Amino acid sequence: MAKDFSTRKENYSQWYNDIVIKADLAETSSVRGCMVIKPYGYAIWEKIQAELDKMFKATGHSNAYFPIFIPKSFFSKEASHVEGFAKECAVVTHYRLKNSPDGKGVIVDEDAKLEEELIVRPTSETIIWDSFRNWIHSYRDLPLLINQWANIVRWEMRTRLFLRTAEFLWQEGHTAHATKEEAIEETEKMLNVYADFAENWMAMPVIKGVKSENERFAGALDTYCIEAMMQDGKALQAGTSHFLGQNFAKAFDVKFASKEGTLDYVWATSWGVSTRLIGALVMAHSDDNGLVLPPKLAPIQVVIIPIYKNADQLKEVTEKVLPMKKAIESRGISVKYDDRDTYKPGWKFNEYEFKGVPIRIAIGPRDIEQGTVEIARRDTLEKAVYQQIDIEHKIENLLSQIQDNLYQKALSFRELNTHKANTWEEFKDLIENKGGFVYAHWDGTKETEDAIKNETKATIRCIPFNNPLEDGKCILTGKPSIQRAIFARAY
Amino acid sequence: MAKDFSTRKENYSQWYNDIVIKADLAETSSVRGCMVIKPYGYAIWEKIQAELDKMFKATGHSNAYFPIFIPKSFFSKEASHVEGFAKECAVVTHYRLKNSPDGKGVIVDEDAKLEEELIVRPTSETIIWDSFRNWIHSYRDLPLLINQWANIVRWEMRTRLFLRTAEFLWQEGHTAHATKEEAIEETEKMLNVYADFAENWMAMPVIKGVKSENERFAGALDTYCIEAMMQDGKALQAGTSHFLGQNFAKAFDVKFASKEGTLDYVWATSWGVSTRLIGALVMAHSDDNGLVLPPKLAPIQVVIIPIYKNADQLKEVTEKVLPMKKAIESRGISVKYDDRDTYKPGWKFNEYEFKGVPIRIAIGPRDIEQGTVEIARRDTLEKAVYQQIDIEHKIENLLSQIQDNLYQKALSFRELNTHKANTWEEFKDLIENKGGFVYAHWDGTKETEDAIKNETKATIRCIPFNNPLEDGKCILTGKPSIQRAIFARAY
Repeated sequence: MAKDFSTRKENYSQWYNDIVIKADLAETSSVRGCMVIKPYGYAIWEKIQAELDKMFKATGHSNAYFPIFIPKSFFSKEASHVEGFAKECAVVTHYRLKNSPDGKGVIVDEDAKLEEELIVRPTSETIIWDSFRNWIHSYRDLPLLINQWANIVRWEMRTRLFLRTAEFLWQEGHTAHATKEEAIEETEKMLNVYADFAENWMAMPVIKGVKSENERFAGALDTYCIEAMMQDGKALQAGTSHFLGQNFAKAFDVKFASKEGTLDYVWATSWGVSTRLIGALVMAHSDDNGLVLPPKLAPIQVVIIPIYKNADQLKEVTEKVLPMKKAIESRGISVKYDDRDTYKPGWKFNEYEFKGVPIRIAIGPRDIEQGTVEIARRDTLEKAVYQQIDIEHKIENLLSQIQDNLYQKALSFRELNTHKANTWEEFKDLIENKGGFVYAHWDGTKETEDAIKNETKATIRCIPFNNPLEDGKCILTGKPSIQRAIFARAY
Repeated sequence: MAKDFSTRKENYSQWYNDIVIKADLAETSSVRGCMVIKPYGYAIWEKIQAELDKMFKATGHSNAYFPIFIPKSFFSKEASHVEGFAKECAVVTHYRLKNSPDGKGVIVDEDAKLEEELIVRPTSETIIWDSFRNWIHSYRDLPLLINQWANIVRWEMRTRLFLRTAEFLWQEGHTAHATKEEAIEETEKMLNVYADFAENWMAMPVIKGVKSENERFAGALDTYCIEAMMQDGKALQAGTSHFLGQNFAKAFDVKFASKEGTLDYVWATSWGVSTRLIGALVMAHSDDNGLVLPPKLAPIQVVIIPIYKNADQLKEVTEKVLPMKKAIESRGISVKYDDRDTYKPGWKFNEYEFKGVPIRIAIGPRDIEQGTVEIARRDTLEKAVYQQIDIEHKIENLLSQIQDNLYQKALSFRELNTHKANTWEEFKDLIENKGGFVYAHWDGTKETEDAIKNETKATIRCIPFNNPLEDGKCILTGKPSIQRAIFARAY
């Protein structure tokens, strides 16, 4: 299988695409820029969803569902939001088709033109705040902590499976609070939830920080983000949490009666992660043998493959495997026993290796004689012979080791590819020839950030939280700076 | 709360709407025909989803996700499908907005017109079969058992919350098989899954049967359905399962190499249920005091309300409640302890009664002295005093009794409102004056069914499976008939 498949060195971008396609995660569809998420890819999304949903509920949030369509005029209500979101989007103008006069199919019925066009949601702040106006009257209705799992459409020109598609799946949290402090606390809390998920479930180290004005969400006062490093040294924004101030409350006239009897605008946050995380997962851990999945998000955590020459041997192996499978499953581990007769063991080994199944167990007649199994780890590709006794605990430990190892490996990679630049020449050289994250001083202006981007394609990924203050000079303009920002080329 | 709320007798339709709105299940949005599903309503949907998803997976299905947009031309590929689905739908014609010249908002950018219009999916057979063509090559790829959880848009003219909205949420199963027999078996299997869910989770008895040609899904050879009776005697179709024959395989050229080496078109099914089920749930069980929920789908199964006069008493009650709550939760039961100081017990009693929480526990200082609690059942509105000892088992039993009682009550209601008509006069009288299900002979033609519908607004809900054969004469035409169909007015 690896033969018709690019390595990272040969062509990183092709390597990514090959994994997504050949590991059956997703494919392009007949609709420009829209992907089909195939069952194996969707199973990863279900694991991501289930865990995040638990985390959101544990922090007091409830799910709800709002319309997919947004009246065009809603976008104009918040001045900076319209600039950011009401541009490249799918516009519904009619509500009926009719038979074409030539009898060959259907055409748009011009009599069924909408009075006001509807936009397929590129994000839902406007339609949700339009509802919140009716939900919020007094301080007793606050905080209002809502999340929505939904599909989103942004008419991206250059698309890549999972990373940037015209339609994608996501969750969007939208909360309303009585005070500014509480809203900022919520913004931070949800960024920490994302960071926790990225590091402890995706095994992907992230840097938490705040966006510069250029990269801020349209309509937010502040955008917090988690940034991860991919294996080509490029940054990937894996989640954002926005402090929206009172912008949307003012745009949609959402006020509440405070305990003291005053009538005030509420304070807002929004935050989201999307199916893009699957792209991040692929790029963070996979290797030249295919997909590598962290055990906690692998749809199949353990595959058992029988080695046999005839039906009798298969029967003998199966009798041994079934209780072993049950014992492992009793630890909450998902196990697939692939006893298909239509494929040979070698083919199956390749298949599951390519699909990133964390642990492969092979067992044949000789193992049965000796009370052993052969275990292969996907992360290190190491093979070892284990005694069958107490196999469930060994597997449990091994999965936990693999999870840790993937995280440590990604962390080491990031550290190895993180540099400081003190001069413009040094900066350009690092960005161009080494890639990765570059910590550099910057004068804090939009203009300088734009100039740096135009020359190097690097953007400010974030100004990390708890950044040490350090006097320095902007790498481009030489103006004074009090701290370094992280620059990188990004997805 | 009940005062500004209609009874079933006064105005059934208003009663339904009042429950949906006042129990906080859903509301209309600023977008014509689209609803907002509020957290309490969405929590019911999450319970429905979780259980059905488990059932689908237990029967071998995997989830996947396909584009929300369907190229207009796809609808014309299957002749009868285009008639049924490519009419009242949302049509995307443009992919960009721009700033309006007067600076007041955004307008559609006429330069960004799509070459081919995209339809927001009203159902996904076409876009899914367009993918299946690439997924299916040989018999080894079959059966292909896929389900999708998604939003759907049908431009309905008259909308009602949950029952008929322009956008709704649903699941749609799409499967491909090597043989006709296997596809028919799948169609039946999934109808049985729906019936099992309706009866054992929703506590709603259903009749399984086959649709007449008039009511068949556009593109299907046969449509199976489950039909339930609402409290106004009208029928509600709660789920459908379609045998599609080779129609979509032929329309999208999906063939497979059989074991014997021939190249054949595959056989298909599709099946779905939607957020409409929440409407059915409301109408099947609720009463003039508000929502009544079957315990298995209630977001909150038990609410505990403290009775107290001062902070000391609340503290004392709370100390008693917390271990009780824990004990009940240990049985997998969801419990809410409402110790809010902003509302009085009487207000809370009304609130949870209206919201259909199956069991209410009240506990005050006198209960603590006597080791008792007061328990109220939502279904019968009965109150009784219970000893605290072993409360978790008592609650568990009570929930199970409530679940059974709701089912039995709905079943008795259906039986009481099911009649046979042998003449046209009798039929018209039953439909007009009694409502409910009417078993009547029919000559099997579309024309007669149309004529009956035009005169009485009653349609054939289904021809029940295992219908006894019985010689008779069509109520309208007098032509010979071999079995009765079920007629009713329907949602």
